[in-house]
Amino acid sequence: MSRPGLEGGAALVDGEVVPIASARIPILDFGFTRSDCTYDVVAVWEGAFFRLDDHLDRFERSCRALHLSLPHTREEIVAILMELIRATGLREAYVEVICTRGVPPAGVRDPRQFVNRFYAFAIPYVWILRPEEGERGMDAIVSRVVQRIAPTSVDPRVKNFHWGDLTRAMYEAFDRDARYPILLDARGSVTEGPGFNVFALVDGALLTPAAGVLEGITRKTVLELAAREGIETAVVDLREEQLRSAAEIFASSTAGGIMPVTTLDGAAVGAGGVGPVTELIRTRYWEAHSDPAYATPVDYDA
Amino acid sequence: MSRPGLEGGAALVDGEVVPIASARIPILDFGFTRSDCTYDVVAVWEGAFFRLDDHLDRFERSCRALHLSLPHTREEIVAILMELIRATGLREAYVEVICTRGVPPAGVRDPRQFVNRFYAFAIPYVWILRPEEGERGMDAIVSRVVQRIAPTSVDPRVKNFHWGDLTRAMYEAFDRDARYPILLDARGSVTEGPGFNVFALVDGALLTPAAGVLEGITRKTVLELAAREGIETAVVDLREEQLRSAAEIFASSTAGGIMPVTTLDGAAVGAGGVGPVTELIRTRYWEAHSDPAYATPVDYDA
Repeated sequence: MSRPGLEGGAALVDGEVVPIASARIPILDFGFTRSDCTYDVVAVWEGAFFRLDDHLDRFERSCRALHLSLPHTREEIVAILMELIRATGLREAYVEVICTRGVPPAGVRDPRQFVNRFYAFAIPYVWILRPEEGERGMDAIVSRVVQRIAPTSVDPRVKNFHWGDLTRAMYEAFDRDARYPILLDARGSVTEGPGFNVFALVDGALLTPAAGVLEGITRKTVLELAAREGIETAVVDLREEQLRSAAEIFASSTAGGIMPVTTLDGAAVGAGGVGPVTELIRTRYWEAHSDPAYATPVDYDA
Repeated sequence: MSRPGLEGGAALVDGEVVPIASARIPILDFGFTRSDCTYDVVAVWEGAFFRLDDHLDRFERSCRALHLSLPHTREEIVAILMELIRATGLREAYVEVICTRGVPPAGVRDPRQFVNRFYAFAIPYVWILRPEEGERGMDAIVSRVVQRIAPTSVDPRVKNFHWGDLTRAMYEAFDRDARYPILLDARGSVTEGPGFNVFALVDGALLTPAAGVLEGITRKTVLELAAREGIETAVVDLREEQLRSAAEIFASSTAGGIMPVTTLDGAAVGAGGVGPVTELIRTRYWEAHSDPAYATPVDYDA
């Protein structure tokens, strides 16, 4: 049963569970003023976390890559997330864990001397593409002016808040009567969009970019599910021309699952509408949420 | 006279002046979770703001570039900053203004629908290089593994918190027994370091990178002061080889002014120690703080 005032979401800040609307972080936390932090997002669906260990494995790897020391063990983090879901009573939730560099000791700029901080929150499930738009799909563009931040600058496998390029490309999409930009890298290869990986069905094979992208858990799930269905998959250097010639395109994200891209730069993708492979993967993806191999149920009465 | 509890710094959050230690921003502000914000830093020195209008001009330009609507006029912002300095009583301060995308309305991801937020704070003056280290100077490296985020991804002239590359390069510096990384771009040209622009004295001319960098107000001041002293200056594509052959190198920043770089990758720069041009510019820089053309005095008794 949810606790009063927490139905809309809750956060753990400084060891206390508070309503999401009053959850705040110090203005001086380098997680804000240097975007010096990492995070992960895991979904709760029909009362169960989806691939919780995969998300927390990645989160811990990201922390290590940034020299961040998590102040909690895996078991403690799981207990915190369970508590947040119980407190909110949410059956479908967007659950975020964040580790930041922390607040600089007075006069200190050396990040090695900071005490790192952990935050977490659970809010109602977030859809990059609203479910009622699932058949209409995403109107995407390939950005002409913004390139994805290069891995030689910021490693996209370490999930990060460096969204300046993605946000800039979103405004470009708005200017071109679309909503979802897909970014290329400096060599013209396809990378990803704001919060999602990209898949293209080319010559019967499901292709997704190998480099310059987050190694998404939903992306990983798609690769596994497609293999089970006997659909050929490949993690490749995906060229813009391949994307443009694809029979189907879809985006994958914890925030919305499998989302068909039905137009690219204003033109229909493939035959138009939601393609059969996209439809199949989307169906299998939601079915997978009740697979015990993937689901960690929340005990709401604990 | 400072207000009790504000001597260590103060912030304006939600229209209220609060002690810096309790100043917080919403955890859901996209300024944090998407680093979707811009900022500027202006110094107060001996009771006067330095080049306040230049900083606020740039801040307003940055907001426009990111489609952020400042909720305050220039006059209101100046009044807020004056109030913060009066409240803290600080004679030497590091004053930051920030505009963020704000908190998403429930279920909304479209940044055009957000109400943008303004924050500001004043804390004791911050030194990238502590003044007692002014003669020893900065031990710098040229990063071998991290490139500065490209302007085709994030425009460095729009002051931003995308410091992932800079922080990563700082850890590389630590591993190489240094503290201050200088980053190159993908073509091998010199850009900048964490919070500072770079100048190199090459064949008697003071060179600084033209592109891929913040157009710093301290950088601008250096160019003006050098011209007055009859020192040739040029804003150029600065090659790594030129940096390595420089007779003098220094960094410029609002957080510390003119800071000599005395070693590069462990080797002495030029003749070693603080060079005469660096020394002259540093002296003129601090003298400029009492120039009425640059200084906006705070009325502490208003």
